[in-house]
Amino acid sequence: MDIAAVRRYLLALQDRIVTALEAADGQAFVRDAWTRPPGERLQGDGLTRLVEEGGLFERGGCNFSHVRGPHLPPSATQHRPELTGAAFEALGVSLVLHPHNPYVPTVHMNVRMLAALPEGAEPVTWFGGGMDLTPYYGFEEDAVHFHRTCREALAPFGDDKYPRFKRWCDDYFFLKHRNEPRGIGGIFYDDFNEGGFDAGFAITRAVGDAFLGAYLPIVERRRGLPYGQRERDFQAYRRGRYVEFNLVWDRGTHFGLQSGGRTESILMSMPPLAQWRYRWAPEPGTPEARLYSDFLVPRDWA
Amino acid sequence: MDIAAVRRYLLALQDRIVTALEAADGQAFVRDAWTRPPGERLQGDGLTRLVEEGGLFERGGCNFSHVRGPHLPPSATQHRPELTGAAFEALGVSLVLHPHNPYVPTVHMNVRMLAALPEGAEPVTWFGGGMDLTPYYGFEEDAVHFHRTCREALAPFGDDKYPRFKRWCDDYFFLKHRNEPRGIGGIFYDDFNEGGFDAGFAITRAVGDAFLGAYLPIVERRRGLPYGQRERDFQAYRRGRYVEFNLVWDRGTHFGLQSGGRTESILMSMPPLAQWRYRWAPEPGTPEARLYSDFLVPRDWA
Repeated sequence: MDIAAVRRYLLALQDRIVTALEAADGQAFVRDAWTRPPGERLQGDGLTRLVEEGGLFERGGCNFSHVRGPHLPPSATQHRPELTGAAFEALGVSLVLHPHNPYVPTVHMNVRMLAALPEGAEPVTWFGGGMDLTPYYGFEEDAVHFHRTCREALAPFGDDKYPRFKRWCDDYFFLKHRNEPRGIGGIFYDDFNEGGFDAGFAITRAVGDAFLGAYLPIVERRRGLPYGQRERDFQAYRRGRYVEFNLVWDRGTHFGLQSGGRTESILMSMPPLAQWRYRWAPEPGTPEARLYSDFLVPRDWA
Repeated sequence: MDIAAVRRYLLALQDRIVTALEAADGQAFVRDAWTRPPGERLQGDGLTRLVEEGGLFERGGCNFSHVRGPHLPPSATQHRPELTGAAFEALGVSLVLHPHNPYVPTVHMNVRMLAALPEGAEPVTWFGGGMDLTPYYGFEEDAVHFHRTCREALAPFGDDKYPRFKRWCDDYFFLKHRNEPRGIGGIFYDDFNEGGFDAGFAITRAVGDAFLGAYLPIVERRRGLPYGQRERDFQAYRRGRYVEFNLVWDRGTHFGLQSGGRTESILMSMPPLAQWRYRWAPEPGTPEARLYSDFLVPRDWA
């Protein structure tokens, strides 16, 4: 296990991604480094990179964080009693981008590692991560490209990985209270330690490295499409679902907010603007209705 | 115990409140009656009354619901093992109003009863409820009026009630992840069965009956104040806090969404529009800064 190598990889990944996003956006991302105050239970540092009112992104961020705590939370050890109370480190990069143009999808990517450091025993590491796409207006070609890129990234680790992680993503990014997927999915994995540290780190690097190739070609294809108030309204309405998922169902967000995480970095995932309307549904036959009928359904995109 | 009497009171209260709100708004509230499909675990019915894009309210609702279930959830009986698995009924009226004008505060009111119906034993009832005010621009006079109305409503039930329920409200409507109250408070009580059914029902009627007198005078004082984009932006930003509280911390919302409640009725509390901005804070000395310094702090308003 080499936490320093993971940290180096994550910081370089964040830098590489933000540099490419800045080039696409035309506006520099804010750089906000933070350190948890000494004396608190959790220690650690992070680097928040964020853009608001950019040329392409209305709001978006790519955050690195690395925290250390004296004891794993009980939720993390209920199936691993031998690790109860062990010290831990958690580090990762998390990204959410909300473009202005409703024809450009919102995207989420996350790669992370958790290490339990029991006294007098070998450390145990788990990796997690993935990426998923949330379009407002669906394009088959974009969904296929995104999923194929995910499949290719996972191909070196066995043919089972993409179908497993694709299903995991569909299951996880699902609004049970709406009976509705958040978007068109992608890949997701968590608590992954098959093959130990080296295998987990390799697969996680593959996911992180694949992100720009999965997303930027879609951005370039859609960013020039003209739109008006109708598309913006639909985007704001659908962003309400993004808020609902992240605040009600996302374990990382919920746990982070309830356990004293850095609120403004966690809520980087919130859209700049969201709308709610009572029992609203799109007119049948419209592009908005096609999002629900053709895209927010389980499909084999790759 | 007389559940039918509680139901009659709640339906009459909803009707009385909605009639007064319609008169203030100038637009009729939608009337949406629902019944849970036969065969589901929970049975029951409800009446959602809702307005969107009204003359006064940008979005708001006043909902009645009455559900029956075969078994109390474990969370409700962990301190009352003798009721484990008992059938139950839950009924209440819940209201949230989001005015257009940022000088008119958002308000929340709720009155409810839970009855456990153990076989071969006496039923047990608990009441809960309260009301609280969330201004965007603070007015001392409004906060004093709201709290004094609450205090007067509770006065017949003992001098201890208002201070207890006021503190309970301050504790409950608090965003721990922001270290910030949701608004200027009011009163809140839960799991209340001191004095049995008659006392609980009486106090709950007093709270419900006090709502219009607590809120409408404030509406009438502020609805004519001119405002512009600056005030609307601040309102939308602050409404983001309302979203965060309800989706992350409010037990009723969270439990309702996770347990298969009627999503569109539960999320009637969502604002029509909400904004998020990274580490935004108002300029010192502005009215927006005074909301934080003078109103979003624990104060003895009455």
